Amino acid sequence: MNFIIDRSCFYEALSELSRSISAKTELHIMSGIKITAHANGLTLIVCNHLFFIERTISIEADRKLTVYETGSVVVPAKYLVELVKKLPEKLIVELTDRQKLSIRSDEISVVLSCFDVETYPKLPVINLNRSVQIPGRLLHEMVSQTAFAASSIDTRPVLTGLLVTFQDAKIKCAATNSHRLALIESEIETDIEGSYIMPLASVKEFMRLFKESTAMIAVYVSENYFVFKVQNLAMYSRLIEGNYPDLDSLIPAHPKTMITVQTSKLLKGIDRASLFNRESRNNNVKLELMHGSSLKISSYSPELGNIEEIQQVIELHGEKQISLSLNSTFLIEALRAFTEEEAVLNFFGPMRPILIKPNSNKRHIHLISPVRG
Amino acid sequence: MNFIIDRSCFYEALSELSRSISAKTELHIMSGIKITAHANGLTLIVCNHLFFIERTISIEADRKLTVYETGSVVVPAKYLVELVKKLPEKLIVELTDRQKLSIRSDEISVVLSCFDVETYPKLPVINLNRSVQIPGRLLHEMVSQTAFAASSIDTRPVLTGLLVTFQDAKIKCAATNSHRLALIESEIETDIEGSYIMPLASVKEFMRLFKESTAMIAVYVSENYFVFKVQNLAMYSRLIEGNYPDLDSLIPAHPKTMITVQTSKLLKGIDRASLFNRESRNNNVKLELMHGSSLKISSYSPELGNIEEIQQVIELHGEKQISLSLNSTFLIEALRAFTEEEAVLNFFGPMRPILIKPNSNKRHIHLISPVRG
Repeated sequence: MNFIIDRSCFYEALSELSRSISAKTELHIMSGIKITAHANGLTLIVCNHLFFIERTISIEADRKLTVYETGSVVVPAKYLVELVKKLPEKLIVELTDRQKLSIRSDEISVVLSCFDVETYPKLPVINLNRSVQIPGRLLHEMVSQTAFAASSIDTRPVLTGLLVTFQDAKIKCAATNSHRLALIESEIETDIEGSYIMPLASVKEFMRLFKESTAMIAVYVSENYFVFKVQNLAMYSRLIEGNYPDLDSLIPAHPKTMITVQTSKLLKGIDRASLFNRESRNNNVKLELMHGSSLKISSYSPELGNIEEIQQVIELHGEKQISLSLNSTFLIEALRAFTEEEAVLNFFGPMRPILIKPNSNKRHIHLISPVRG
Repeated sequence: MNFIIDRSCFYEALSELSRSISAKTELHIMSGIKITAHANGLTLIVCNHLFFIERTISIEADRKLTVYETGSVVVPAKYLVELVKKLPEKLIVELTDRQKLSIRSDEISVVLSCFDVETYPKLPVINLNRSVQIPGRLLHEMVSQTAFAASSIDTRPVLTGLLVTFQDAKIKCAATNSHRLALIESEIETDIEGSYIMPLASVKEFMRLFKESTAMIAVYVSENYFVFKVQNLAMYSRLIEGNYPDLDSLIPAHPKTMITVQTSKLLKGIDRASLFNRESRNNNVKLELMHGSSLKISSYSPELGNIEEIQQVIELHGEKQISLSLNSTFLIEALRAFTEEEAVLNFFGPMRPILIKPNSNKRHIHLISPVRG
């Protein structure tokens, strides 16, 4: 392997990839970046037990990269990235021995010990026939509006993932930790049918890596893997096996009271009210309907004090008697997921979940179970 | 106590002060901010076992603050700051009970439990007759160019502080951990004489708080305290008792070799060379003079690899044979302390300290002991 590359172009790709390597895998081959030099350019791969990320640098007319000899090597990511960051422009990179990478630049000469490339995990095979194109912005929004509701405790592994369902030319994203549920649905062009559960760690990595991908993202769907792909970047995420609970049966109908509120104003009120309880186990705020036209938001901490505020509601339908306590973090995260100015709070009774949705026709709901106040 | 204040003006002062409160003093009265309302405005104080910081908000024509009733209270800083951040403009602040502070704004009403103001530590008395005015930028620069060399291990407490000496209308700042030493001297207008040791934690706090104070800073000097003061901010720092080692006797004269180098280029070279050793106990780089006109910088890690580079020197006087190993962190921190383009490295022999100073008449030196390579 032997190539000459522009430092900043190499550094940009390496530093982006190295952020996907967890600090915990330090001494393992997964702390490395696999570099393959081939006729078309370089392919850089990092991986962990959940996903692979593949970044390509193509040979282009601007001559930022010239490959003189093909080959592969696995280099300790942390040191390679720091080194390339600190070197001057134009690097001569050469595999001098099976596990010794030489990097030269000006009067600087470095030899880096490498891992055995044969022991690096192999990429899974993509099923090119089963794919769907989804607008990047839409996919990003749907994932960010639901994934936070997944469980962080792995007693039921399926709940630690994001449920992605393709059905009737629709994509649905949903997550629940059994105390709250988030669900959103959109129409897309696809004939794929099926439900898949993507691990939350992969979801977070996807969100980071494809944040700027506003054009179409190709999603290749197979039994055990999702592959997300744009021009020079691909992510292969393993899926979680198992049966996800039936969500439709959990969503209540016929609310006793419906109130319309200003999303950002309610969010600020809940955020303030939760201030004293944020670090306590009893992380609750109380919502009460007052005089049929205003909402009282309050909380109390025996050590720190109390806080209460009154907000006018925009519209009210149904019974004028409401009083219930909710986990403030769940409520804040649900309200933050709405991009709409107004939200509708649906109440079904004192110890029944509250259902929140935007004041629009869009299918986007958050369900939160109350707690004892 | 009863006052009305503009939220953003109150928040700015509180958030600046609260950063000086260490997270460790959580449940203690020192986790509080003492607020005193008086005829001229508000005085806010935070403290720990090393320093007091006092910030005043004066009543001015813009009516951002109106005091209706004087008084004092100590409020949990963390919650007060977060709360004020999240409230709308115009706050009505009132002590409703000796330990209950009421804060109201629009339709929001908060009661905050407070500490007993009588148990809050008292400010030391300033000796107004013994003071010196020092340009803020100069003081800041001198401190930042030396304080890092102090010891982080408290077996010899005096070495964990910054030595500040006033003598013959000069101020000298110096620090050493007995393996390296930093010293800088400037002329100022003062007739104060004496040496004082300021704890490093106070030094860091001073640097943060007075970063923007480019005009004159008044320093009040007494046996146990330094007080730094600008218009609406004062810091009272306790001093460390004890005798500081005699530094002048440590500084060698008559170098065997003197080489002039470009500061930033050498710094970059050392920084690169230290990459593989940074996390190891053997955090060394080797300097060797080659052919009398160039400097070889190298390091080697048995696990990771090796790195070496050749730099031309600008000027050389004396013996042409040098080879010694130095702690790379000490070398990097010393070079970073120079604002001058060129630095002079003075060598006194294979196991004698290296002395680095700027290529100018300024009295600013760094001394670093070599290690076995």
